[in-house]
Amino acid sequence: MELFDAINQRQSCREFLDEPVERQMIEKIIDAGIMAPSPLNTQPWEFTVITNQQIKEELYNGAKACKAAAIEASGWKWLETYSVQFLRITPTIIVVTGDPRKSGVDIFSQEGPVAFGHACAAAIQNMLLASHALGLGSVWFTLFDKKRVKTLLNIDENKVPLAFVCLGKPEQQSPKTPRKPGEKKTVFID
Amino acid sequence: MELFDAINQRQSCREFLDEPVERQMIEKIIDAGIMAPSPLNTQPWEFTVITNQQIKEELYNGAKACKAAAIEASGWKWLETYSVQFLRITPTIIVVTGDPRKSGVDIFSQEGPVAFGHACAAAIQNMLLASHALGLGSVWFTLFDKKRVKTLLNIDENKVPLAFVCLGKPEQQSPKTPRKPGEKKTVFID
Repeated sequence: MELFDAINQRQSCREFLDEPVERQMIEKIIDAGIMAPSPLNTQPWEFTVITNQQIKEELYNGAKACKAAAIEASGWKWLETYSVQFLRITPTIIVVTGDPRKSGVDIFSQEGPVAFGHACAAAIQNMLLASHALGLGSVWFTLFDKKRVKTLLNIDENKVPLAFVCLGKPEQQSPKTPRKPGEKKTVFID
Repeated sequence: MELFDAINQRQSCREFLDEPVERQMIEKIIDAGIMAPSPLNTQPWEFTVITNQQIKEELYNGAKACKAAAIEASGWKWLETYSVQFLRITPTIIVVTGDPRKSGVDIFSQEGPVAFGHACAAAIQNMLLASHALGLGSVWFTLFDKKRVKTLLNIDENKVPLAFVCLGKPEQQSPKTPRKPGEKKTVFID
């Protein structure tokens, strides 16, 4: 698939067919992820690939609790209409975990490290584009409690689960999400 | 260009020819950036496109000071060999700025918002891939003082400059940066 087609056509997908994603595809998607740049080439990413139904149910329960907490904290009642049910039926969930100790010079910054998360986000974008090119639907999901996911997946205490990349064959074409045009987001200083 | 070729061939480039980047290319690169996903479709990114030599000199001076501070804080003497000279000769620098108020539900989190930065990072990855497909070299640069850049570029106090995307026609092919294979970064839970 042509790069700009992939970038422009990719959409978040939350409705998946009940068909497994081939192992070879998952590996190809992760291999795309690791080609992202990272601070001092620290490659701060790790991947936990989940197809196990029991774990998916746990992630779903965690997301429900996290959604309830978010509604409570924000007062955003509309959030109640956002269903996290799809986590139970997503064929494959790739949990992307970052290592804050692999963050370039910003490990010495007052604000704490952020570059490791940005590198992982670049890896995730590669993964979403690769998924689309392979005919899969995907969504970047973050409504989870980091501590709970760490415990569930036995993730090293020093590392941070940053996102679920949910993957599967799309049930239908996802709706287009509108964008404010680039020109309205840009200032030129010539 | 084919997506996987773009993902696999892109390299960080710090040596540019002294030729301007066409405005149309810059717009195409930003248009690729804004197609990234973002939390609740908040599109937290903004772009400041710099071709002005005086501003580039200021960014260079800032990077030098920031490098000295990083060497002081880290004790990493090898960092002295990392030249930031290329900032003066980069034809175009796109400063990517994020808005922490556009970060989805994590604006209510204890740790503070991170998703806005991750969305901007995904936009940057799109921009790097687009630049490569257009025959340009690019590098994602973060060795700068946020406050200083804010003041210099008159960026809203509530927003955060996250990265410089340095762009130009590459002087030569950049060296390949090695990667630890995906399979060594992955655990499967079936």
